[in-house]
Amino acid sequence: MADYRELERGALEEEYSSVLSDYNRHKAANLSLDMSRGKPDRCQLDLSQAMLGVIDSPADCLSETGLDCRNYGLLDGIPEAKRLFADLLDLQPEELIVCGNSSLNIMYDTVVRCMLYGSDRETGPWGMGEKIRFLCPAPGYDRHFAICESLGIEMIPVAMTPTGPDMDEVERLTASDPAIKGIWCVPKYSNPEGVTYSDETVRRFAALKPAASDFRIFWDNAYIVHDLYDEGDRLLNLPALVRGTPNEDMVYEFASTSKITFPGSGVSVIASSRKNIEYIKSIMTVQTIGCDKLNMLRHVKFFGGVEGIYRHMKRHAAIIRPKFEAVLSAFDRELAPLGVASWTKPRGGYFISLNTLPGCARRVYDLMKEAGVTMTAVGAAFPYGRDPLDSNLRIAPTYPSLEEVKAATEVLVTAVKLASLEQYLGRPARA
Amino acid sequence: MADYRELERGALEEEYSSVLSDYNRHKAANLSLDMSRGKPDRCQLDLSQAMLGVIDSPADCLSETGLDCRNYGLLDGIPEAKRLFADLLDLQPEELIVCGNSSLNIMYDTVVRCMLYGSDRETGPWGMGEKIRFLCPAPGYDRHFAICESLGIEMIPVAMTPTGPDMDEVERLTASDPAIKGIWCVPKYSNPEGVTYSDETVRRFAALKPAASDFRIFWDNAYIVHDLYDEGDRLLNLPALVRGTPNEDMVYEFASTSKITFPGSGVSVIASSRKNIEYIKSIMTVQTIGCDKLNMLRHVKFFGGVEGIYRHMKRHAAIIRPKFEAVLSAFDRELAPLGVASWTKPRGGYFISLNTLPGCARRVYDLMKEAGVTMTAVGAAFPYGRDPLDSNLRIAPTYPSLEEVKAATEVLVTAVKLASLEQYLGRPARA
Repeated sequence: MADYRELERGALEEEYSSVLSDYNRHKAANLSLDMSRGKPDRCQLDLSQAMLGVIDSPADCLSETGLDCRNYGLLDGIPEAKRLFADLLDLQPEELIVCGNSSLNIMYDTVVRCMLYGSDRETGPWGMGEKIRFLCPAPGYDRHFAICESLGIEMIPVAMTPTGPDMDEVERLTASDPAIKGIWCVPKYSNPEGVTYSDETVRRFAALKPAASDFRIFWDNAYIVHDLYDEGDRLLNLPALVRGTPNEDMVYEFASTSKITFPGSGVSVIASSRKNIEYIKSIMTVQTIGCDKLNMLRHVKFFGGVEGIYRHMKRHAAIIRPKFEAVLSAFDRELAPLGVASWTKPRGGYFISLNTLPGCARRVYDLMKEAGVTMTAVGAAFPYGRDPLDSNLRIAPTYPSLEEVKAATEVLVTAVKLASLEQYLGRPARA
Repeated sequence: MADYRELERGALEEEYSSVLSDYNRHKAANLSLDMSRGKPDRCQLDLSQAMLGVIDSPADCLSETGLDCRNYGLLDGIPEAKRLFADLLDLQPEELIVCGNSSLNIMYDTVVRCMLYGSDRETGPWGMGEKIRFLCPAPGYDRHFAICESLGIEMIPVAMTPTGPDMDEVERLTASDPAIKGIWCVPKYSNPEGVTYSDETVRRFAALKPAASDFRIFWDNAYIVHDLYDEGDRLLNLPALVRGTPNEDMVYEFASTSKITFPGSGVSVIASSRKNIEYIKSIMTVQTIGCDKLNMLRHVKFFGGVEGIYRHMKRHAAIIRPKFEAVLSAFDRELAPLGVASWTKPRGGYFISLNTLPGCARRVYDLMKEAGVTMTAVGAAFPYGRDPLDSNLRIAPTYPSLEEVKAATEVLVTAVKLASLEQYLGRPARA
């Protein structure tokens, strides 16, 4: 195989008809695969099956304080769950609230709370007349962007780099525009690129001087322990960095066990300064009497402590890692020589980000769909669903089996080749 | 014992010193009891203990459709849970969404959704500049009122009668004021009086002609199957009554298993017109990927069907009923002859409402506190915590044991006598 950019038209034509016949062969196989969402595979879920049995008798349902977790009470979570998450996040139990099964829901609630009540007692609600803006490092997590779009918050894209968001832009924009109230970050193994923010990036976040005194960093640490290799990426602890500084109240950190135990039945957490946590609790107490404490207890008893989580995540990695490697080795083998695509090589998280030639991503998506493989919607990783280059594809290799990932990746490299050749040859995309 | 109203001053003085010595005796007993909240007793929770064991193997975690309930997905709940709640509410599965552990949280979210997005796609958000008002039948549920107060919604009290809210007032106010966007109702075994709305009341709700086209009835059916006796009160089905009428979209019904299985780990539901449910889902999908499906499955497997819930509630009643009866028989015996108080005699729910002489409720609360019994805060059952007559006390007899309920009620009748005598004698309340 040769670099497409160096091929003459005749050779391109020849390659095209060969790739087209490959593609038609794949299509004839009638695949039905889903690589669209970051869902764990069934055998990852089996790893946590024993968690469902750790609470049985009424005595099992007591918290270490003697509180009956079956009954009402305890807005911020049981103490042992707070301690487990404090260990996981390397923070103090007073700096967090343990919540229900969805960290997305806490993020949504946090934005809504700022809009209706304000981010603290002193400044007013965000939504008082003026336009609100959020910085959105892109590509990023589509569900973050959906929250902004749904609530009418204007999104300003900021480019992602291999060390995190373009911090020059982040500093410049936050310093100059008081309507910018927040920024979405997935700082470790970012969705979809798998980038971990560098120490310098995190330190610059800690030292931001935003024009809005009620500016907040939404630090979605969704992949905090989701390493694929024994030596994981290392992320600086932003909430700890700002503790005791004038920016102490600027950070909301989120995490969950959705991709540690069960996506539908995990436990989530919000962490922030003590002042913010007290303020959040003062509003949350109107909203609910408390979250599911029995499920918190299940998690605590199942893991024993944070070391139990670390051990558990190695078992996840053993299942996921071969899938990532299958995708990456196919890309290296099939695409690298051609000069028609680039991709990230994450050492954790749930996604690989593939960049095609500009203007080819939608075509690849359609070709995949036609061949029975569902990919994440093109543009999903960008604010308003608009990828300005039509180049980015998010690959979620965890849900299908290893064999299915291999099969889907074979189709994918063929589709990337075909779309690239169509572009080079100026061929109109077929219907 | 004689009617205090007929006693001469000398006899009142004599009674006073006798009651005071009773009270001091109670105080010396150093009780520590809590009758403040509608919490189930521990042995009620034990009734549902087996529910925690019904899901064990991975195969147990599959919904009837084959969907793995451990994983992401299914925003509106698993089909078998929707069917169970549809049977419970006597509605269609398409008319409801099964949610997480807190119906209070759904109510809060529902008000917030109306404020930020509007109650439908056509009318605007409730919060656009103009003042919003809610009708609040009083006495009522303090947490409903806390939602309004927290969100800056003005509360207009409407008197409760033995057949429900004063419907003349409800009709008059909703018809004349377009700023009135909602009303809070606990239509069966109301909190705190235990009143079940009469058929006429429910029919008048169904036929309301509110000035605000986006007016909504918040029908919190918290005690839908919480009968104390085999023959429970019968409530007309408001969502079914409005179905197919111009008021079809006017009702949100809420329910939960908080007081059926576990208060901390139950399942909740919102029901409304199909149009409203579709609209709610279109916004909820931004908020979360879905609620805890494993817990829904636990409930379905534990109960088998709605008949299982009915059987289960009889076991609850067997525990609770003697506590209600202990309170009521003490009132009948000790207070009825004196003419200083009136109370409700609920046939279900979690509360008894006691009305003292005007101006005595706070004094009774303080006397109880001094004697080691925590009652619900005085005024809690009224908007802004203000009982205009200082007369109402909410009694929650479920949480303490039967012996404790008897002991606390003895103190309570003594405190009511003492406060009444202080008032008749013009004695200043002691420090």
